Amino acid sequence: MQSRQNQPDESKREFLQSSLVLATISFGYLVLDGCSSLPYSIRAKGQTMNTERNERFVRGWDKLKEIDGEAGEKVIESLKNIAPDLARYTIEYPFGDIYSRQGLDLKSREIATVAALSAMGNAEPQLRVHINAALNVGCTPEEIIEIIIQMSVYAGFPAALNAASAAKMVFVERGIISA
Amino acid sequence: MQSRQNQPDESKREFLQSSLVLATISFGYLVLDGCSSLPYSIRAKGQTMNTERNERFVRGWDKLKEIDGEAGEKVIESLKNIAPDLARYTIEYPFGDIYSRQGLDLKSREIATVAALSAMGNAEPQLRVHINAALNVGCTPEEIIEIIIQMSVYAGFPAALNAASAAKMVFVERGIISA
Amino acid sequence: MQSRQNQPDESKREFLQSSLVLATISFGYLVLDGCSSLPYSIRAKGQTMNTERNERFVRGWDKLKEIDGEAGEKVIESLKNIAPDLARYTIEYPFGDIYSRQGLDLKSREIATVAALSAMGNAEPQLRVHINAALNVGCTPEEIIEIIIQMSVYAGFPAALNAASAAKMVFVERGIISA
Amino acid sequence: MQSRQNQPDESKREFLQSSLVLATISFGYLVLDGCSSLPYSIRAKGQTMNTERNERFVRGWDKLKEIDGEAGEKVIESLKNIAPDLARYTIEYPFGDIYSRQGLDLKSREIATVAALSAMGNAEPQLRVHINAALNVGCTPEEIIEIIIQMSVYAGFPAALNAASAAKMVFVERGIISA
Amino acid sequence: MQSRQNQPDESKREFLQSSLVLATISFGYLVLDGCSSLPYSIRAKGQTMNTERNERFVRGWDKLKEIDGEAGEKVIESLKNIAPDLARYTIEYPFGDIYSRQGLDLKSREIATVAALSAMGNAEPQLRVHINAALNVGCTPEEIIEIIIQMSVYAGFPAALNAASAAKMVFVERGIISA
Amino acid sequence: MQSRQNQPDESKREFLQSSLVLATISFGYLVLDGCSSLPYSIRAKGQTMNTERNERFVRGWDKLKEIDGEAGEKVIESLKNIAPDLARYTIEYPFGDIYSRQGLDLKSREIATVAALSAMGNAEPQLRVHINAALNVGCTPEEIIEIIIQMSVYAGFPAALNAASAAKMVFVERGIISA
Repeated sequence: MQSRQNQPDESKREFLQSSLVLATISFGYLVLDGCSSLPYSIRAKGQTMNTERNERFVRGWDKLKEIDGEAGEKVIESLKNIAPDLARYTIEYPFGDIYSRQGLDLKSREIATVAALSAMGNAEPQLRVHINAALNVGCTPEEIIEIIIQMSVYAGFPAALNAASAAKMVFVERGIISA
Repeated sequence: MQSRQNQPDESKREFLQSSLVLATISFGYLVLDGCSSLPYSIRAKGQTMNTERNERFVRGWDKLKEIDGEAGEKVIESLKNIAPDLARYTIEYPFGDIYSRQGLDLKSREIATVAALSAMGNAEPQLRVHINAALNVGCTPEEIIEIIIQMSVYAGFPAALNAASAAKMVFVERGIISA
Repeated sequence: MQSRQNQPDESKREFLQSSLVLATISFGYLVLDGCSSLPYSIRAKGQTMNTERNERFVRGWDKLKEIDGEAGEKVIESLKNIAPDLARYTIEYPFGDIYSRQGLDLKSREIATVAALSAMGNAEPQLRVHINAALNVGCTPEEIIEIIIQMSVYAGFPAALNAASAAKMVFVERGIISA
Repeated sequence: MQSRQNQPDESKREFLQSSLVLATISFGYLVLDGCSSLPYSIRAKGQTMNTERNERFVRGWDKLKEIDGEAGEKVIESLKNIAPDLARYTIEYPFGDIYSRQGLDLKSREIATVAALSAMGNAEPQLRVHINAALNVGCTPEEIIEIIIQMSVYAGFPAALNAASAAKMVFVERGIISA
Repeated sequence: MQSRQNQPDESKREFLQSSLVLATISFGYLVLDGCSSLPYSIRAKGQTMNTERNERFVRGWDKLKEIDGEAGEKVIESLKNIAPDLARYTIEYPFGDIYSRQGLDLKSREIATVAALSAMGNAEPQLRVHINAALNVGCTPEEIIEIIIQMSVYAGFPAALNAASAAKMVFVERGIISA
Repeated sequence: MQSRQNQPDESKREFLQSSLVLATISFGYLVLDGCSSLPYSIRAKGQTMNTERNERFVRGWDKLKEIDGEAGEKVIESLKNIAPDLARYTIEYPFGDIYSRQGLDLKSREIATVAALSAMGNAEPQLRVHINAALNVGCTPEEIIEIIIQMSVYAGFPAALNAASAAKMVFVERGIISA
């Protein structure tokens, strides 16, 4: 699935990986170009504690691409000049550790995530990413709507209505429904 | 109250009711025109379990119109090509069942709802709908502000400030205060 | 599954149904014996709006028994002298309407519910009911633990730890693990 | 209402007021007897900023007694050796400032509070205090149950069920229903 | 810090104080010009209960200016024609009472507030105000990012990601990072 | 600080580490004795993805002991027969990754955590662990109470009152105040 995102991905992944992972290994975290003249430059700090991480990072990056596609990549991108370590942790822990686990298939994992984010009702950008993700790993639009409707029971109608609104945006973007 | 919404309402209600309710009765849920060529068309599924519902639906639709006016209608409208059954449930359960109950007057019910949505702080569109609804059923602007100020005690000042901000939008829209 | 709950259930269901549904139809809500001498007796109010509901109620009651087993029955039981109409709505809307829907299998529905309740972190009794329910409809203990671990990503470690604690209680009760 | 709490209250109030308010005026906050030998004694700090507060405190204490009765007094009592200033603020801001305001009657204020605390679902002790308070200021048990049932719409069924459970405890304690 | 905001502030503060405080003392709350022809004019009500408050108000206003700078002033400004008493309480209780307390330095207080608002995840405008405030009272950008990253542990990754996004807006506005 | 927990710790740590880490490396997760005859035995699954983790685990375990002391150990212990991987992640991510970071001292980190957990109001066991932790890393009881009082502003009085109640339990347990 998500074939439209895959063509130039291999080389991009390698670039990102080599720069990000090497940065991770060498510097603790990312050196950001162009920031050095700003008061808050995110500089290398000579931390050595991260060298162990690259296996989790690589596995996480691949998993994030598989599940979230471009949307996940954008999340990581948006963090690079504000909290690159949070970007790294987002790759390593949720994707390198959790979504890489056996014991629950990816479709069930996304059902769980769409349900949780719909119910919590305070993470709309992430809900949209995971409605996309759910579609990417095999949920049908109908199933996503079923999860959202069900959340009216556990988190109330406003949470369900707002999640439906997020789903609408995603479905329109992907051409599943018309605007 | 809300007299400006009432003129063409009777016929509209009848149209909506006949199409919606009939759809509900015949098909389980709505057939949406223009969606049939899209991957996610919301099609009739031959469910028969909904035939019993039309009394709750009719009562709920009238109650929703009485309380929420146009704002409620828009919520229902916005769901029609993404989650028509959630639209139906929103009419049937909150309005057909709950707001149609005896034992607490509508004004007290809207006080409760404005308080809850202000305190929860994650349902701003619904809060605006219900600030409108509170005005529709007899709350004064002052009373709504009192409820919101009181929520600073139970949910903190940010929740109260954001609810005041929502009230401001509604009051400006209705010409109660100037922008 | 849940065979231990099934033997006397048919007759019990019929009893409950006949008394509850008839009460619903005739009186609006339940007449509770023994309460009549108390200040807050839940009396018949001659409401007629509920007559349409018995199909949803019957379907809901059966679905609740199928999914939640005894735990669900206890929830309903505990409401009878405080909020019998909330008991009825709990049967009708979540179970008669939502869990009776097509479009998502019961196992997926319970994955969604366990995820949501774990993430919300403020509904521990209901989480335990639905960890039981998840086991009843085919989730393995391992899958439930996977959902809970995954919630550390979306709702934080305290939510995941408290959900794991709830799961431990359920698993011990059912003899899945030792205390 | 709440006549049983009123007999010795006047002298008690005066005692509390004189000791508390004087302490407030003289010392910034309370000197607690018996704590002086403990590592964390809550000692006078020579703050002078509180002298202006006694009018709000007196008004708040009377309002708290009017609304919450003994339950409110217990809350204040329980804070005295851990956070006496939080006790003072609880008297001054919610009760001296907010509940003393005009513009919304006390019954409507308690409807708002019971709704908010039921919906938030993470403040069970305070919900019980305010179910009591609602009864104290003129809500009927039926009205309280109506508010709680309504919260199923906005915060989901678990929130409503847990609030009903809290109401049951209060109603049993007050002899409104049998256990 | 915040020197750029201080030049015309003294006179402005005096103006605001004299008008606001006098209004408070004389009228209970603010008379707003230009509103008198509107249905919801915020009129004097002859309340006398506020005369005691001006010391807390003055102290709070100065503290709010010290901590939040212009952002705080804007919050107060935005409330003036919708909920002037909420503006007054926001000055009096959080700033006049709490942030004016001894026992915890302002930097630690802002660490606490940024952490709480990031974790709650439903008060984005206030989070931005307090990321500014944290910088104003001596937190470094790095420390703020550390707090936000840490919140991934307690409130999950979406909360941390959204807080990072809020920090990005603030840091860009203040020229700490480039857009 | 926390000297009472340190005597037998070195050998215990080594034992735990050798068994836990080796289990982690060899088996993916822990083999639990005595569980093998139960339906839900947590068995080795031949996962190899965890071999990289032992450095984070060792660092995290030491950090958890430094910060949380016995309370942290108990949390980990309580997970061992229900969700050992969640125990491992709790050691690795919050403690091995986050609390081991530079850029914010441990005292500030605990201020942030006590604030967040007080404000969220749905993680009482974790709040108690971190009130202990805050004391362990140098917060005074007064500072903890200041944080909690401050949360009344952001999350409301019930959240602050319940956090004060949690602090009282911890302070009594540690002999800081009398019961």
